[in-house]
Amino acid sequence: MTKQMRLSVEALKWTGAKLQVLDQRKVPEQIVYQDFDSAAGVSEAIASMRVRGAPAIGIAAAYGVVLSVMKHTGEKTPDWRARVDADIDMLAKSRPTAVNLFWALNRMKAVLDASPAEPLAAVAAEAELIHADDIAANRAMGERGADLIGGVKGVLTHCNAGALATGGYGTALSVIRSLYARQPVKVFAGETRPWLQGARLTVWELSQDGIPATLIADSAAAWLMRSGAIDWVIVGADRIAANGDAANKIGTYALAVLARQHGVKFMVVAPNSTIDWTIADGSRIEIEERDPAELLPACYREQETLVKAWNPVFDVTPADLISAIVTESGVVLNPSAESMARLKIA
Amino acid sequence: MTKQMRLSVEALKWTGAKLQVLDQRKVPEQIVYQDFDSAAGVSEAIASMRVRGAPAIGIAAAYGVVLSVMKHTGEKTPDWRARVDADIDMLAKSRPTAVNLFWALNRMKAVLDASPAEPLAAVAAEAELIHADDIAANRAMGERGADLIGGVKGVLTHCNAGALATGGYGTALSVIRSLYARQPVKVFAGETRPWLQGARLTVWELSQDGIPATLIADSAAAWLMRSGAIDWVIVGADRIAANGDAANKIGTYALAVLARQHGVKFMVVAPNSTIDWTIADGSRIEIEERDPAELLPACYREQETLVKAWNPVFDVTPADLISAIVTESGVVLNPSAESMARLKIA
Repeated sequence: MTKQMRLSVEALKWTGAKLQVLDQRKVPEQIVYQDFDSAAGVSEAIASMRVRGAPAIGIAAAYGVVLSVMKHTGEKTPDWRARVDADIDMLAKSRPTAVNLFWALNRMKAVLDASPAEPLAAVAAEAELIHADDIAANRAMGERGADLIGGVKGVLTHCNAGALATGGYGTALSVIRSLYARQPVKVFAGETRPWLQGARLTVWELSQDGIPATLIADSAAAWLMRSGAIDWVIVGADRIAANGDAANKIGTYALAVLARQHGVKFMVVAPNSTIDWTIADGSRIEIEERDPAELLPACYREQETLVKAWNPVFDVTPADLISAIVTESGVVLNPSAESMARLKIA
Repeated sequence: MTKQMRLSVEALKWTGAKLQVLDQRKVPEQIVYQDFDSAAGVSEAIASMRVRGAPAIGIAAAYGVVLSVMKHTGEKTPDWRARVDADIDMLAKSRPTAVNLFWALNRMKAVLDASPAEPLAAVAAEAELIHADDIAANRAMGERGADLIGGVKGVLTHCNAGALATGGYGTALSVIRSLYARQPVKVFAGETRPWLQGARLTVWELSQDGIPATLIADSAAAWLMRSGAIDWVIVGADRIAANGDAANKIGTYALAVLARQHGVKFMVVAPNSTIDWTIADGSRIEIEERDPAELLPACYREQETLVKAWNPVFDVTPADLISAIVTESGVVLNPSAESMARLKIA
């Protein structure tokens, strides 16, 4: 296998009986997989951010449904389907923003709704297909994105839209892997507060594949752009509206505004499953706000204090700040409701 | 004293024989003052960021010169002045960006150049004057800035331009203190990576004065602006060029670009001593780059790795993105070389 085709690290491994989840809160200090054998466990793994990244969340949830079917058909309870549906509802509540979660659960439900003779085999096959398709989609996106970019000096990415956020290979990092395989390109990554996915995951994941990466404070991105060092910002997405508005990790919107002001192009890379055709624009996307404790030093939490924190973990970048949206089925330049619709037909 | 006149916390305390420096790397968990009785010690306290903030650095350096004169005249060495000059050179090398450092050292040198009969008494009086003048200047800036802003819903500040960054009372936080004393205003602070001065110092300092503050990730500022919650960004400066270009903590330039795009006004608050009239524009300001270790998780530093970090700790905001520069002697709206020159005359 060539360097860019190797799957260096996997967020999720399915054994046939258990889902092994890399605890991403501990990377890069520790590479620890935990076994989950229940939908409740998978739901907690998503809510607690052991697994994160929109496509990976969808895949994990699909395996969560398999574990639910395994349990409830194994116990031969007559109302097993109702119990599985309750587990699906629980999984759907694990995080609100990434639409891939709901998309994957809907696919699993559709399989069950067809009343297959062997429900467990059917849902297991579907989850494995979702997983395999995601990897294939990522590879296609990587090549499409690299084709579009051509030769450049440098790129900046935000958060982790890599192998760790997907079934493998990544979305934004898939484009960067493909770019780097063609020619040297300087890769910068924002550290991505408050969870530091850029510092802990992205630069680590790239270095595992032999790609040098330079970490910056999120607030240094504008100064980096002004220096002329980067030509493109390349990010993933958690949900894309029908008009191309894209929700992604907090800070993405700022990068898009700054990119436009500095003549830097802005690419969103995500599988078709990230597009939510049911919403006309990004104003309908629910933005998760997480515990202020993720930002606040402990001393403010241990006693009565006037100090609070506001911790939205996503923002929405309007389509008109996006130069290109890349999915496995095509590239949309200057996205709009009209131009996005072509992806739907494809 | 009214609430807004109280000096809640002091970065520096001069005993007459020693400089007591609050170790700001430990705030808010620990409030620990360390005694320094030599110029070398003060120089190290500045370089290591025990004391930080442009005006506070200048004041600390002035006391460093007093300690040098104390030592070398006390030892009655005939070449005491040469030794003091060597200490002044050492102090000047402690940090490169804040011009207040060089300004304060020049004032101390001018006192010595006048060959006073009692050199120690003369330099001690000068350092105490620099310190007292800074506090008075801050109070004047606070009122001027608040007058200009009038009634607003919310403001955002970055890093710590507070009592802890100055002789007392603060620059940007002086304006916020004055605003808050007049009417309730919602105060947001960016956490300010990599040293987290916003999280550790600014929200703590404000809460000590009874002012509620809300911490955000630096990368959430654009999303906050888009929500309409803030009307002004208010920051300090480490050096202002003759045309109004202003160097300040990394991330300030990004906030200025984002503010302009969101119709949010942008104020720089700094004493006259922060203006470097010798440079025509900001391109001549040396931007300090600090150890990548301030950003990089330890695991990347302990072994051979492809992961690097770029750690500029200041950036320069062009004057045309600044709505107002406020000093103790006046307010300059839409700063330019022409409008700034009025401050020089005042």
